[in-house]
Amino acid sequence: LPAETQSAHTQSPNTQFIEVVLVSPRNPLNIGAAARAMANFGFAHLSIVAPYEPHWREARSAIGAPDLLQNAKESATLAEAVAGCTLVIGTATLAHRKPEQKVVPLPALPPLVQQELNRAGRVALVFGPEKHGLTREDLSWCHLLVEIPTDPCQPSMNLGQAVAVCLYELSSHAFSSQGATPHVGAGASESKAAAPSGTLDLLAAVIEETMVAARYSPHSMHAANRHDLRLLLRRLSPTQRDARRILGLFRRILWRLRQIPKGN
Amino acid sequence: LPAETQSAHTQSPNTQFIEVVLVSPRNPLNIGAAARAMANFGFAHLSIVAPYEPHWREARSAIGAPDLLQNAKESATLAEAVAGCTLVIGTATLAHRKPEQKVVPLPALPPLVQQELNRAGRVALVFGPEKHGLTREDLSWCHLLVEIPTDPCQPSMNLGQAVAVCLYELSSHAFSSQGATPHVGAGASESKAAAPSGTLDLLAAVIEETMVAARYSPHSMHAANRHDLRLLLRRLSPTQRDARRILGLFRRILWRLRQIPKGN
Repeated sequence: LPAETQSAHTQSPNTQFIEVVLVSPRNPLNIGAAARAMANFGFAHLSIVAPYEPHWREARSAIGAPDLLQNAKESATLAEAVAGCTLVIGTATLAHRKPEQKVVPLPALPPLVQQELNRAGRVALVFGPEKHGLTREDLSWCHLLVEIPTDPCQPSMNLGQAVAVCLYELSSHAFSSQGATPHVGAGASESKAAAPSGTLDLLAAVIEETMVAARYSPHSMHAANRHDLRLLLRRLSPTQRDARRILGLFRRILWRLRQIPKGN
Repeated sequence: LPAETQSAHTQSPNTQFIEVVLVSPRNPLNIGAAARAMANFGFAHLSIVAPYEPHWREARSAIGAPDLLQNAKESATLAEAVAGCTLVIGTATLAHRKPEQKVVPLPALPPLVQQELNRAGRVALVFGPEKHGLTREDLSWCHLLVEIPTDPCQPSMNLGQAVAVCLYELSSHAFSSQGATPHVGAGASESKAAAPSGTLDLLAAVIEETMVAARYSPHSMHAANRHDLRLLLRRLSPTQRDARRILGLFRRILWRLRQIPKGN
């Protein structure tokens, strides 16, 4: 990736394997503020999901907009944006919601991210739209949720400020633990890295096909089952290698199930 | 002070003895953002020094402006604003300046503030105007300077974001010393507990049967495969509830596989 090489000298070794993902941001000032906070704390990889085009164009062309806005990745869906990531972290205000995943307070997040980077993973930090935040479906792509400890009377933060606070916490940790373990080389690391989100989606699709073929679910797959399966796979968080083995098993089962004669 | 009494119940005991001082802020959006961050992190005492009147009026009358903007203290000089404080902390980007005071990186600040509050002190955290920051004269009212550890290539932060990051660091420290337990939902214990070893063994047996039925492994199960499967399930470490769901899925598949007529 040229962008990585280009700006490698300005980044902490850790931050270049962390992506900041903004889902449908509306306010160009907020997009700009998020990008500025990224530049302040040495993060280079911005990913925008389903942006509102006029505002996105405005944010990119703003005077003094950091380069990383030009290099931002655009995706139609969150699934696509995080397909290459092994640890997807959603940001959420949980005041009125019962979370389905593990919730980590922000001050406790850095060691978890560090751990993932140590095993050559790639991390995504996902922020929702200003008004409503991430939807329940968005959150089903997340391995865990992070919560900024705010005052219960005023829990909802401005997007640009939330990004700044999260990146500060991650980078100040990265800077302070200067001994931050270098990226483990390929080879040994492969077997320990968590499977990226895209692999989990592929696995979910094959399991779903198998369930249908086994007539597991009377009305094939309800949306609710699909949602639960997505969450389940992220809780299990198999390594890439394990994910491939599970995939192989289900493909074999599926192949065998399809040999059942019609009408049986 | 009536403002203190009024909102004391929403604040951490620490934050009510900390004042946020903005010196000559220009942009009403930044004033609003600073106030919002204060509300998010439970700070109530805002002090404005020599504001540019039209912008200050605009910020106060903005829709949704937090109450603390109405209660803000106005002073003509920084000296006046911090007169009641026992520890005055200046925020500064020190790239081009030789500091005359002790400089503390932000992550190291909370214990110093805590120490001051423990001895019944009153703390001011002072932010300069957007363009130039605090002047050398302003800084001369400060006991120490705090520096947010930013990237050397892009050290200068947006005012609203700098306030958010500083208050986050101070308040998350305050909250964490409360013994604030991480979010654990009621009744969540059952679903979060890892499945006991016996359940994993049962699961392994059913998966093994399924593999044989699907003719996945030509020589049924080798000892090595069984060993790997056992390790795999422990790496995944499903919860008791998830283990039961996976078991249900495999039992269903197995049942279906057994409907394949002999010889197929």
